[in-house]
Amino acid sequence: MEQLQYHEGRTEISQLGKVALIERLTEGTACCGDDCAVLGDGPKKTLVNVQTLVEGVDFDMMYTPLRHLGYKSIAIAISNIAAMNGTARQALVSVAVSNRYSVEALDELYAGMHLCCKRYDVSMVGGDTASTRAGMVISVTVVGEADEASLTRRSGASHNDLICVSGDLGSAYAGLLVLEREKVTYQANPDFQPDLDGFDYVLERFLKPEPRTDIVAALKERGVVPTSMTDVSEGLADSLLHLSRASGCGCEVYEERLPIDYQTSRVCSEMSRNMLPVSCALNGGKDYELLFTVSQKDYEQVKQMEGVHIIGYVTEPGMPALMVTPQNTTIELRAQGFQGVDQ
Amino acid sequence: MEQLQYHEGRTEISQLGKVALIERLTEGTACCGDDCAVLGDGPKKTLVNVQTLVEGVDFDMMYTPLRHLGYKSIAIAISNIAAMNGTARQALVSVAVSNRYSVEALDELYAGMHLCCKRYDVSMVGGDTASTRAGMVISVTVVGEADEASLTRRSGASHNDLICVSGDLGSAYAGLLVLEREKVTYQANPDFQPDLDGFDYVLERFLKPEPRTDIVAALKERGVVPTSMTDVSEGLADSLLHLSRASGCGCEVYEERLPIDYQTSRVCSEMSRNMLPVSCALNGGKDYELLFTVSQKDYEQVKQMEGVHIIGYVTEPGMPALMVTPQNTTIELRAQGFQGVDQ
Repeated sequence: MEQLQYHEGRTEISQLGKVALIERLTEGTACCGDDCAVLGDGPKKTLVNVQTLVEGVDFDMMYTPLRHLGYKSIAIAISNIAAMNGTARQALVSVAVSNRYSVEALDELYAGMHLCCKRYDVSMVGGDTASTRAGMVISVTVVGEADEASLTRRSGASHNDLICVSGDLGSAYAGLLVLEREKVTYQANPDFQPDLDGFDYVLERFLKPEPRTDIVAALKERGVVPTSMTDVSEGLADSLLHLSRASGCGCEVYEERLPIDYQTSRVCSEMSRNMLPVSCALNGGKDYELLFTVSQKDYEQVKQMEGVHIIGYVTEPGMPALMVTPQNTTIELRAQGFQGVDQ
Repeated sequence: MEQLQYHEGRTEISQLGKVALIERLTEGTACCGDDCAVLGDGPKKTLVNVQTLVEGVDFDMMYTPLRHLGYKSIAIAISNIAAMNGTARQALVSVAVSNRYSVEALDELYAGMHLCCKRYDVSMVGGDTASTRAGMVISVTVVGEADEASLTRRSGASHNDLICVSGDLGSAYAGLLVLEREKVTYQANPDFQPDLDGFDYVLERFLKPEPRTDIVAALKERGVVPTSMTDVSEGLADSLLHLSRASGCGCEVYEERLPIDYQTSRVCSEMSRNMLPVSCALNGGKDYELLFTVSQKDYEQVKQMEGVHIIGYVTEPGMPALMVTPQNTTIELRAQGFQGVDQ
């Protein structure tokens, strides 16, 4: 039989980092490094995105209602279509489960999926189930469309473009922190009643994110085509680095401009190690907000857009990705490595 | 926190069966029950298929070379496009692994994927990696196209149509049996050298299946559009039941007409419980051959096609799916339940 070990050396995935790993694995292919694959030769492009969620890594069954999980799995795939200024049209779902799950559990999961599809006018055109030895794996493929003229990639930002972000940042991670805290307390004492009062917003942000298709619609209405865009799935720092790297520019954002909800700040102050809210915003992830750049000429338009914050600007090629603090010191933003694998 | 248990009752997935489960979960949606989702309003259709492979269920790392696994994961997704008489064009890959896997291991996996993409003229347009706590999960989305006039669904078979199958059946399962036997022997004695002599064909059939795009091309060349088609991924019985059910007809196939390779027969005779080769063909699965029906007028054309076997015919609506033995007794074909979950 052929041997499984082909190489003498062994490089850990965490040594390389996710971006470099994907570049290495897809070298010489048509993979674009955008949020979706872009298909079609004509002016109407087809966008395709696949999201895989793995139990124990991407979700914890201890505090994730199945209906919410179903909703979220569709929502984050739609978010990737929105991140290219496109419109999601169809979803294909593949769920692999162990026999720990009942038919009724899958009913709940799919009920959440159908709800999200309905809300965002997406047709479920494919469903499949498979089996695992343990746990659940959800794979969602979303197909969308965009006109070539409005399709927005990560690579189009230029020097002096304005950097904008929708909604607020760090709240999904704050929600996760609350749930993890309650889980630990529950494990110590199963009679314990979870105390989630006053955290409804951050919990909803984590358990049931909404893709920002409303921002895509608002941009269209105002005739603004962003020069580059991505969604904030692994934290603002990661998303900024993606845009910078793809566009070959630097960027500078202002800490005091970062939109952070008061519940996020409250969760941070309650945490034992006194976490900084800005750390949640930069590195927390799972916000599924849109990060985009626009040309200076569109300043008046984006300034008036509800829920859009101008947080900085694009700097010259060769410059790093920086955050300026209120004390006017600059911090270089870095990726947080390969999320999950090296945790 | 919302409760995870919503229902008093609990129905096991194995009680319901895979087909009924998927129908239940996707009720009221545009899911078609075909091998791919079909998108587009015009005469040119876009086909999309997602395949998820889970370590420990769909593959065993003990005897699966990573390069073969990569090849196979693309091949079976392409097979689903072929199963609708379409042509695969693009592939998107998402691989979730634990830190047990090195970068070099992923290199091997992707090398196999690239090889299969190249061989079948498919562009890899999206690649992603994620993490699991344990094991590997591979998700492949393949996008293809078909003209509306040649697109073949499962539902078009009519009474008296001929039932055809490509290649041979049961050999992939025979290959799996050989590998499982060697694994057990190895586990009992790690100094043991595997004896795979004379099984090269069945091993290749299991480890590195080829999608039958050549059959799709040959059908086109001869101007034959099948009335219905699917691929043989879970055994001939399962595929026949899919076509029968979708077309609302019965079917009758002849045991002596089923194409079975001599290596498959040899593996069966060597197995301790003296397995019947026809059982491998009916229930073994993973052959990725094409099962299709053609109208009687195309008899001369398909008779001349290399590697195509006419194994029976479609019977009237309301009739069951039957196999006629050489002794002229009939056996009703049944699905083997939910593969994997209830193993």
